[in-house]
Amino acid sequence: MKNINYGLLGSTGKLGKEVQNVFAENKFQLVYELSLEGETQKDIPQILIDCSLPENFENTISLAKKFNCPLIIATTGLTSTQMEALKTLAEIVPVVQSYNYSLGIQILLKLTKEVQKYVDDWDIEISETHHRFKKDKPSGTAIMIRNEVEKEEVNISSLRLGNVFGEHTISFGGLGEVLSISHSASSRRTFAEGIFRSALFLLKKKNGFYSFTDVINENSH
Amino acid sequence: MKNINYGLLGSTGKLGKEVQNVFAENKFQLVYELSLEGETQKDIPQILIDCSLPENFENTISLAKKFNCPLIIATTGLTSTQMEALKTLAEIVPVVQSYNYSLGIQILLKLTKEVQKYVDDWDIEISETHHRFKKDKPSGTAIMIRNEVEKEEVNISSLRLGNVFGEHTISFGGLGEVLSISHSASSRRTFAEGIFRSALFLLKKKNGFYSFTDVINENSH
Amino acid sequence: MKNINYGLLGSTGKLGKEVQNVFAENKFQLVYELSLEGETQKDIPQILIDCSLPENFENTISLAKKFNCPLIIATTGLTSTQMEALKTLAEIVPVVQSYNYSLGIQILLKLTKEVQKYVDDWDIEISETHHRFKKDKPSGTAIMIRNEVEKEEVNISSLRLGNVFGEHTISFGGLGEVLSISHSASSRRTFAEGIFRSALFLLKKKNGFYSFTDVINENSH
Amino acid sequence: MKNINYGLLGSTGKLGKEVQNVFAENKFQLVYELSLEGETQKDIPQILIDCSLPENFENTISLAKKFNCPLIIATTGLTSTQMEALKTLAEIVPVVQSYNYSLGIQILLKLTKEVQKYVDDWDIEISETHHRFKKDKPSGTAIMIRNEVEKEEVNISSLRLGNVFGEHTISFGGLGEVLSISHSASSRRTFAEGIFRSALFLLKKKNGFYSFTDVINENSH
Repeated sequence: MKNINYGLLGSTGKLGKEVQNVFAENKFQLVYELSLEGETQKDIPQILIDCSLPENFENTISLAKKFNCPLIIATTGLTSTQMEALKTLAEIVPVVQSYNYSLGIQILLKLTKEVQKYVDDWDIEISETHHRFKKDKPSGTAIMIRNEVEKEEVNISSLRLGNVFGEHTISFGGLGEVLSISHSASSRRTFAEGIFRSALFLLKKKNGFYSFTDVINENSH
Repeated sequence: MKNINYGLLGSTGKLGKEVQNVFAENKFQLVYELSLEGETQKDIPQILIDCSLPENFENTISLAKKFNCPLIIATTGLTSTQMEALKTLAEIVPVVQSYNYSLGIQILLKLTKEVQKYVDDWDIEISETHHRFKKDKPSGTAIMIRNEVEKEEVNISSLRLGNVFGEHTISFGGLGEVLSISHSASSRRTFAEGIFRSALFLLKKKNGFYSFTDVINENSH
Repeated sequence: MKNINYGLLGSTGKLGKEVQNVFAENKFQLVYELSLEGETQKDIPQILIDCSLPENFENTISLAKKFNCPLIIATTGLTSTQMEALKTLAEIVPVVQSYNYSLGIQILLKLTKEVQKYVDDWDIEISETHHRFKKDKPSGTAIMIRNEVEKEEVNISSLRLGNVFGEHTISFGGLGEVLSISHSASSRRTFAEGIFRSALFLLKKKNGFYSFTDVINENSH
Repeated sequence: MKNINYGLLGSTGKLGKEVQNVFAENKFQLVYELSLEGETQKDIPQILIDCSLPENFENTISLAKKFNCPLIIATTGLTSTQMEALKTLAEIVPVVQSYNYSLGIQILLKLTKEVQKYVDDWDIEISETHHRFKKDKPSGTAIMIRNEVEKEEVNISSLRLGNVFGEHTISFGGLGEVLSISHSASSRRTFAEGIFRSALFLLKKKNGFYSFTDVINENSH
């Protein structure tokens, strides 16, 4: 699957640049670009990647319709109305939506579910560490982890230190033992690779609304 | 399931004492006891627990046959001949054998398998920390973990510090991310509870050779 | 320094029992005891250890005056009035007061001060993990650590997991690096040894109000 | 101290590029450059930075003599003969030599010394984690840490995982407690900043052989 034409919204952002690297290494051609610096089109994209901001959302939907092609959306902080709009779009073209495209975080979510098959009454604590510039607290990923926990009212501890890229830990504590699962990300490349993996997944679909978990499930052995 | 009579080999050891506490709390009666201080019998045991040493192995087999009852064996360092003898015994009575009766370690083993469904080319490192008095290096449990790893030649780092009860970590490292699963035990009670759980499991079986993993699987939801 | 007679308030509590073990190993004689089970006196104590509760404080002061001997007080949650009373007492007899008699925590406090000689603008985060039964949040020791930090408004994350004995971490984060100091306690014996160390220290003093930090400083090389 | 002219050996390497960024931000002018791509000279450097390889060592010495200016050397794996040559050079110009220019590692070395003032008989373990591409095992920094330990034969555990930039931990274990100091580096910028700090230090010296520890000591408060 080479020489695919793709379009990129938010192409000049940090994640956008990393996406360009990974896609270029895999012989995908960047033919449509939208950023604060304007719009460039060389050809018709066969798939669209959105690494821009929620403010650009209307644009994203219009472009996916115009090009009638699959969409991967990595924008964070979508409203429930925007999520609904994505699901409506997914009736026409295939869509992958996730707040975190790292493989390791997806595995952590799966392990979190798995542990709860065996322990009922253990305490659960989630903690996350990020750089001092991060504005939201707790992180969106920490909330994704908490959503996998069956217990109510699980505490999330948020630490802000230097320029730590992103660390998440979920700990389960029984009387006499503690089991912890930790994930530490050290580069945006991980996310760009997850987006590329989603692209390969989507290019085989006709329509439908998918999560990055669906992508991972299809790829596992 | 109350007022069950049980027998205990190695009753005066550290684990033996903790087993007595947990079984007493659950209204099991200690009716047969064997230790360095001798043998005491008050009644016929309906289940036998072996927390003694490999040196006592012959005795264990004879007693299980004599009482014709289930056996839970927590002895470490069994030879392959002794393992064979256990399997032969298991044709007559049900047997649970494990080198580690902690629930958390069993879960860690399962998670280790699970992670490998999603990552092929990630590096794997195992490390374990125990008290300065521990003689074997690496720990039996670290070896159990390595046995779950599909890769060949996985490194185990062994640290000896103060009187740390027992910590095990397996880490998976991809380019841009690290996923770790850690277990820390802080009391022998955990093991005694695993043995009690095995007792409840065995009392419903007729014969067969089981691991503690089988016990956990039946109890999960 | 053997065959010293000592008195113990709160002798039947968990810490009281551990103090008895450590002092007995060092040939100290328990000659005065006060607990919920009553008062016992065999001889006159040469030093007094208080492992009881703040409710017993009046009693502690009277006994130290009555026996005219050094006092080590390990009671937590003293009011400022009670602290003043201790300082007044210290004009007559030597007193050691601390909320944490572990050597490792004292070293952690010193290292915390040391780090701040070299870093000005790094972020600081404190976290602590304790068993689910702990009522105060954050722990008194975490507050002691925060008191060593020159910055204002340092965040403390408190985790409650199983029966973790006590873990404290202080992390310093600069752009591009994180430095962390962690302490993990696994038994009350550590505290009892710190109290014994304080006893040896006090038996050489006439009067004065000391912290456990003073004790450690005199013992260092 | 602005508009200083500096020279850089190994200017096209990863560390060399980061040095250029930090020095440019501080208004230093790159006037002399040596790399695999050749030599460029625009003016006479007032200070020389060597981020090249040991193979280039002879060149480094000649250039420092030729320009008669301070030298900061970040090359690793110097032989004892090369170290002697540096010390001889330091009789004429001031020299800073270190295998690790991160501030946090320097602090970790100081804390390691500090802890040993208070604990005699505790166990000590050093561990380090680096990316899978690292060739030396254990890391030079881990050896620097071990050199600060008074005990003989301290174990170093080396883990190789993904593209972890560099983590070092030293743990001290007593009966009942463990104290650990950990450092995690996440970018080369840290090292470039340490080199810039060394430059400011050297520009005030006439001659002499200094370590990065000397630089840090002068800057502490």
